[in-house]
Amino acid sequence: MSPAPSITGKTRLYAIVGDPVVQVRSPQVYCAEFAKAGVDAVLVPMHIAAAEIHDVLPALLKLKNLDGVLVTSPFKADAMSIAAEVHPRARRVGAVNALRRGANGLWFGDMFDGEGFVRGILAHGHKVSGRRALVLGCGGAGSAIAGALIDAGVSSITVFDPDEARAQNVSDALSKSSGACRVTAGSADAAGKDLIVNASVVGMRESDGMPADFSTLTADVLVGDVVLRPEDRPTALIAHAKRCGCPVVTGVDMHEGQVDAILEFFGIYRSA
Amino acid sequence: MSPAPSITGKTRLYAIVGDPVVQVRSPQVYCAEFAKAGVDAVLVPMHIAAAEIHDVLPALLKLKNLDGVLVTSPFKADAMSIAAEVHPRARRVGAVNALRRGANGLWFGDMFDGEGFVRGILAHGHKVSGRRALVLGCGGAGSAIAGALIDAGVSSITVFDPDEARAQNVSDALSKSSGACRVTAGSADAAGKDLIVNASVVGMRESDGMPADFSTLTADVLVGDVVLRPEDRPTALIAHAKRCGCPVVTGVDMHEGQVDAILEFFGIYRSA
Repeated sequence: MSPAPSITGKTRLYAIVGDPVVQVRSPQVYCAEFAKAGVDAVLVPMHIAAAEIHDVLPALLKLKNLDGVLVTSPFKADAMSIAAEVHPRARRVGAVNALRRGANGLWFGDMFDGEGFVRGILAHGHKVSGRRALVLGCGGAGSAIAGALIDAGVSSITVFDPDEARAQNVSDALSKSSGACRVTAGSADAAGKDLIVNASVVGMRESDGMPADFSTLTADVLVGDVVLRPEDRPTALIAHAKRCGCPVVTGVDMHEGQVDAILEFFGIYRSA
Repeated sequence: MSPAPSITGKTRLYAIVGDPVVQVRSPQVYCAEFAKAGVDAVLVPMHIAAAEIHDVLPALLKLKNLDGVLVTSPFKADAMSIAAEVHPRARRVGAVNALRRGANGLWFGDMFDGEGFVRGILAHGHKVSGRRALVLGCGGAGSAIAGALIDAGVSSITVFDPDEARAQNVSDALSKSSGACRVTAGSADAAGKDLIVNASVVGMRESDGMPADFSTLTADVLVGDVVLRPEDRPTALIAHAKRCGCPVVTGVDMHEGQVDAILEFFGIYRSA
């Protein structure tokens, strides 16, 4: 990890807001990217108490040398309501995870959880367009990923959640702007699917098993898992997919894809 | 200048607030001191528009990982009114230039312009106690320095300002808690003085001459000047004092003394 550049009075600020923030890795990641890109900026953690977000974040956004904010739990919905303008894909899932100051001076919010995952797939040379997708888990990550898969051209998508009403709500919301893509709420069944994504919390604990019974996976199925794990200790789903000969996309890939997307959102481009 | 340490989610924040802030040197200075002291913290510039200070600073002070704030122009009086508790020496001059979160969770303000100058004198091995002082300029710096000189035991002090009413106001305010020290507003006359301090803006421009006529300086007079200049391009006053054989204390010395005092205020101690 390269050290942050020396901070001066001219250094531009980016922040990550959350409660807590001690666990975030964004300061290291983005400070290193700013340094590589030759941008005189730092990204610092800002810990806001959950009950005070609506007092503190609007005031923070008035800092004249603050150019961007990453938003983590539990503030993604609050940040959407605080942003002056919001991308339709963020509005669709009711959450933003990044804010930037626009040329008009207004703060613009967008959501990159889904875009990051799609970029992770594409970066591995797989295609998304035309696939028949199954997304497990209809929380913030799942609905954002389902939305991004629709935007990237999947031919059909089934969303599953143990809470059936929640799955139906996400399906209904996505159907409003899904174009030719058929969106349904359904069971966690891999039959007829060639893209399976775990966007549930199953796999976060070392002791977790599979998020659903996928004994029949064939090698043409692309398997993704949002859970962030070291490469040598994959989730049960990723380990099983690899044994079945399936190509995989992990939480690490999604994270990398999201960094790319957010840097571009901030107007900063990584060199190849 | 050593680079700032890598910033993580656990890194504690300090800020310098001002309008503008691009000119400040505190981020470099304090980040280097934090690194030397092994403290995982950074000090970043935060540019607040002058009209928004009372909206933005109180909200900033709610950031749970913010431990201290340096305050520069034009916010020193505003910051005093925003602080929950204020040191009497800061109250006396109506301004604070540093805030820290106290053990009780409340923000405490103090003023180190004067303390920094006195430390600068002491660091050069000169004594302050018992001297007969003349302070030129009764703005924020001048009144803070006059107050600190009283606290450090000068036997008498004359404050001078081209605006006689301003000088009288400062003299009156300081007299309330000056103990045995005789405080007067008077002329810029070096006769009978053995400590002369320029706390006016005269000397900030390269073309500036002396802040007053001091043709008669004798070598027993300690001469100070708050104006920050490189050592090889001293103010006219410092150059003249050196020619007269007087010991001198410069803006650089005052700045160094102030860094020491503020680091201690923040609970951070420089190794010798």
